[in-house]
Amino acid sequence: NRSVQVPVAPKLVHKSFGERVTLATNPAAVKLFKLMESKKTNLAVAVDLVNKSEILALAEAIGSEICCLKTHVDIVQDFDQDFITQLQSIAAKHNFIIFEDRKFADIGNTVKYQYENGVYNISKWADAVTVHGVAGPAIIDGFRDGLKQKGAGLLILAQMSSKGSLCVGEYTNQMIEMGKQNADAVLGFICQEKLEAMGDNFVLMTPGIQFNSKGDNMGQQYNTPDYVIKEKGTDVIIVGRGIYQSNDPKSEAIKYRQQSWSAYESRL
Amino acid sequence: NRSVQVPVAPKLVHKSFGERVTLATNPAAVKLFKLMESKKTNLAVAVDLVNKSEILALAEAIGSEICCLKTHVDIVQDFDQDFITQLQSIAAKHNFIIFEDRKFADIGNTVKYQYENGVYNISKWADAVTVHGVAGPAIIDGFRDGLKQKGAGLLILAQMSSKGSLCVGEYTNQMIEMGKQNADAVLGFICQEKLEAMGDNFVLMTPGIQFNSKGDNMGQQYNTPDYVIKEKGTDVIIVGRGIYQSNDPKSEAIKYRQQSWSAYESRL
Repeated sequence: NRSVQVPVAPKLVHKSFGERVTLATNPAAVKLFKLMESKKTNLAVAVDLVNKSEILALAEAIGSEICCLKTHVDIVQDFDQDFITQLQSIAAKHNFIIFEDRKFADIGNTVKYQYENGVYNISKWADAVTVHGVAGPAIIDGFRDGLKQKGAGLLILAQMSSKGSLCVGEYTNQMIEMGKQNADAVLGFICQEKLEAMGDNFVLMTPGIQFNSKGDNMGQQYNTPDYVIKEKGTDVIIVGRGIYQSNDPKSEAIKYRQQSWSAYESRL
Repeated sequence: NRSVQVPVAPKLVHKSFGERVTLATNPAAVKLFKLMESKKTNLAVAVDLVNKSEILALAEAIGSEICCLKTHVDIVQDFDQDFITQLQSIAAKHNFIIFEDRKFADIGNTVKYQYENGVYNISKWADAVTVHGVAGPAIIDGFRDGLKQKGAGLLILAQMSSKGSLCVGEYTNQMIEMGKQNADAVLGFICQEKLEAMGDNFVLMTPGIQFNSKGDNMGQQYNTPDYVIKEKGTDVIIVGRGIYQSNDPKSEAIKYRQQSWSAYESRL
């Protein structure tokens, strides 16, 4: 019988958001790191509601607690320019960024049109947009003009929270590589864990966060704030139904904010 | 020196569209196989224009030549309900289906909202929509209610025409499996070649078709109609810039239609 050395995973070393401001090259990443450091929040809220008035009321109610508001403008029944104007004014008042979770996933020539044109004119108002790199790295070129005008950034889907996702393994590695090759355009990654290759210059955001749920009937799976920030080492939690479906979104937002911020502080 | 037997790939055996009507289980696939057989066209045209009037004029001009019109409604600057009403009337007059190339790529709960809600109300008018299965198979469940109401179908992205695409290998195999497990909901695949696992009950559509181009500066790559229908064994060619950017879209459409239909006939 020999004593066997059990290998221990190396502990992740975490820099503060303040230190990472100087490492980021994408303007929206710089803005977000600064905002999180000064406002002391790493909570993003996903607002999957279909009426303008409900979304604006929620944004106003929880604006003081969040660093990002995540939208799906293409589910808003009464979308119009006034909705964007009001949302931007609430974002300025409470100091958060707006990220449109469009999950662009076409070829470069098409995403350019989708980002800059159409009824939604996303490039005019979103500080960040999500992108699946499945079409290949040239998709990034479709965004360059639009991103520069606004100082916005891309969030690349490196991993997903849904059951049976194909954003895994070598696919994930290629998404990280795509981000690193385009660090000027990329704010960060949507992911479930910090992988070493991701570095410290990107913001890592994790969806699928809820205190009390095992999932829905369409494949969504949930984790807690503490688990993803402390154990998995990502930076921002994205909470959806746990807040916008609550009877008291503001109190819930405060709870999520407190747990995720103290998880962040405890890892420094 | 020995004589070496060079292995020859088994020749694909192709059934006619008419025979495949009886194999398909998705209502939009049945409709499309019938339409192609009777109208004698396997040409789809992608119309990536940003004004309502231009799109409608093109649809009217080439409607007699095509089996599908592929739209990106989210790039149309002056989109409104009248656009959809007029487009549907042109589609009925010339007997083609409308497929919205939305490339849905979120979790089931979100795509349900995106498909059925918002300014575009895609589920109300599109005969087919494209889907990336990257979030996992539960995405299909987000579409079921909407698909049933319209008798529509999903087109799953199994391969892409852009450089460095990650829709390859095991990812492609999983997309085919996702389609086969949900044959009632799935019209077919967007792909670059017929793979044996795809079977004969799905419609196989191939984008990135142009007579005279090597590609664009954002990663798009092109093939000819003859090559994909005869050599690669897919069913429908999707032509974009080769037709909508031509000075005479109608004559170009006739040329593409003739080459792709005779390629189809020659393989029977």
